[in-house]
Amino acid sequence: MLVDGKPYRTIWLADDEPGLVRIIDQRKLPFRFEIADLRTTEDAARAIVEMYVRGAGLIGATAAAGMYLAAIESAAEEDFEASIQKRADFLCEQRPTAVNLRWAVERSLGELAAENSTESKIAAARQTAIDVADEDADFCRRIGEHGLDLIREIHEKKGGGDAVVNLLTHCNAGWLAFVDYGSATAPMYAAHDAGIPIHVWVDETRPRNQGARLTAWELGQHGVPHTVVADNVGGHLMQNGLVDLVITGTDRTTFTGDVANKIGTYLKALAAKDNGIPFCVALPSSTFDWQIRDGVREIPIEQRGGEEVTVMSGVPENGDDEIEIRISPETSPAANFAFDVTPARLVSKLITERGICEASEEGVRSLYPENFA
Amino acid sequence: MLVDGKPYRTIWLADDEPGLVRIIDQRKLPFRFEIADLRTTEDAARAIVEMYVRGAGLIGATAAAGMYLAAIESAAEEDFEASIQKRADFLCEQRPTAVNLRWAVERSLGELAAENSTESKIAAARQTAIDVADEDADFCRRIGEHGLDLIREIHEKKGGGDAVVNLLTHCNAGWLAFVDYGSATAPMYAAHDAGIPIHVWVDETRPRNQGARLTAWELGQHGVPHTVVADNVGGHLMQNGLVDLVITGTDRTTFTGDVANKIGTYLKALAAKDNGIPFCVALPSSTFDWQIRDGVREIPIEQRGGEEVTVMSGVPENGDDEIEIRISPETSPAANFAFDVTPARLVSKLITERGICEASEEGVRSLYPENFA
Repeated sequence: MLVDGKPYRTIWLADDEPGLVRIIDQRKLPFRFEIADLRTTEDAARAIVEMYVRGAGLIGATAAAGMYLAAIESAAEEDFEASIQKRADFLCEQRPTAVNLRWAVERSLGELAAENSTESKIAAARQTAIDVADEDADFCRRIGEHGLDLIREIHEKKGGGDAVVNLLTHCNAGWLAFVDYGSATAPMYAAHDAGIPIHVWVDETRPRNQGARLTAWELGQHGVPHTVVADNVGGHLMQNGLVDLVITGTDRTTFTGDVANKIGTYLKALAAKDNGIPFCVALPSSTFDWQIRDGVREIPIEQRGGEEVTVMSGVPENGDDEIEIRISPETSPAANFAFDVTPARLVSKLITERGICEASEEGVRSLYPENFA
Repeated sequence: MLVDGKPYRTIWLADDEPGLVRIIDQRKLPFRFEIADLRTTEDAARAIVEMYVRGAGLIGATAAAGMYLAAIESAAEEDFEASIQKRADFLCEQRPTAVNLRWAVERSLGELAAENSTESKIAAARQTAIDVADEDADFCRRIGEHGLDLIREIHEKKGGGDAVVNLLTHCNAGWLAFVDYGSATAPMYAAHDAGIPIHVWVDETRPRNQGARLTAWELGQHGVPHTVVADNVGGHLMQNGLVDLVITGTDRTTFTGDVANKIGTYLKALAAKDNGIPFCVALPSSTFDWQIRDGVREIPIEQRGGEEVTVMSGVPENGDDEIEIRISPETSPAANFAFDVTPARLVSKLITERGICEASEEGVRSLYPENFA
């Protein structure tokens, strides 16, 4: 997607310098746009654990790129196999619960194992890094195409032409969380690029403000009209006909259609239901949990530190160096549940790389029969 | 209620010095607790317009106190009547939409008109200032008594004894918005003081953070166990059995039971309904709108500046002087709807100074038949 008018991905291999991986350092967004260079396995690990990069798709792509750097380093070691395995383990340790991290590392190890020479192992690792990123981008692009149909339909119902389709999204399921396009944002970018007038209400997404910081920034950079709102506002907007479609991403969706996503998603789904507005969830199929039937009861919800609620980060007037302020009494504790689960009954549609389906076991089965063996 | 272990109201007349009114300067809470002295009509007007004081009940009490100061000043003028009228108009101009302001000023003028001597006019204005404050406090105290019954019932259902009743509230409908007790908080203070173990989830209440700043502070000062949460969290808490009762205040409630309150209230009411949790609204009867039938369609919703969303205020580490930071991209606009309307169908009960009723025309009529002539 565009940044300062120039197309970017969140991660790429430098064309002109072997062994150089570049990423957007997302820690400083939206106040500073900086590119970070990764030249060692250590660099890649740091980018993952210190959250230069975040989002399942992007963590996987960074891990695959890290394995390419690990292969180059291992070629200089006495025992290539021992070295690459050590580095693979090191990468996996950085965020042990990130499924895509381990998946990408193991995929790279498998490709390496099929090669004999050190040189061809390095080439295989490089190609795997490229493939993982390209596939992630391709899945998101396809989600965008399918979601575009929904937006086009609404646009036509509203009379087409200059009629604006109003969308609402929560958190950042944008291209910054993947390699390109994003999940929830992919249909928005596709519609905008197809010339359909859209406007996006961006939920601030307390406490970490991923909407106000990241979604607002990426939509703005790509030229998509948008407005930041407090998380409290969505119900009022829907009640007053100011939202045509809600699209969010998801951190985990059960094969029965229950959606775990950033805390507050459930409240927006309730408001959409109460006002007859479609509530859609966009996801690559890697996000499905094929084991869990009852998301509300069975998906564990992470609790994070209360200081994420009581301390806010931003820039003072005319500055771009972030500072922190406390916004509540020092003696008042805060709780910080990071996710909630929206029951399938409140979800209108799932938008996947294979198409759109109902948020139900039957719906998911219709697109992914091979997972219902 | 208690501050640093000592009972306070938000406004009082100094015992030892005629012509001195004291208020809590709420602008600096929760970071600094400061008392401001009002000695002139000008001081009272400034306290109202610069929001040293806020909340319908407290604005009314401050206006009545301002009229006492105006009477003292007018006694020194050539034409008492012209002077007091000029000062009354001046007070009313400060926040023209605040119903209680005009009401209190006119009540004071009426009492003054019944007296003949300047001295007795001053005495009448002083007594009116005391009466307005006492009546506000008394109405809130009675709301607390009625609401206490609801909390006691839940406590008993949970087995009594050490069982904790979990409440959730949105915004600040606390004693800081009135003279004492508050509306939504009155049942909480009553239950706490009666020895029923309660715990309050305090919605941060973006964008102006009245929950995180004021409700958390006043509950903490009075010793009521509480936890600050982002506005996104309530749905998850209710889904997981962590809330027994929601109580909010209201800025305006129709005689049919539709509730205008701080933006985001509607989302909590939806979640309460979805999880079978009582959602109650506490209000003195002065908050009823006896004209409007359909709150969702007819109550105008104020839109405020977007900078309230994009700029946050708080204190740096180890500081107590507030500073401001921007939390989103400079180029992203923000919208700021200040209130929303919760339809009566989502409201379980109204808690008033006369008792508890259904949120419906029939319910309200049963308590306030004189307003249905």
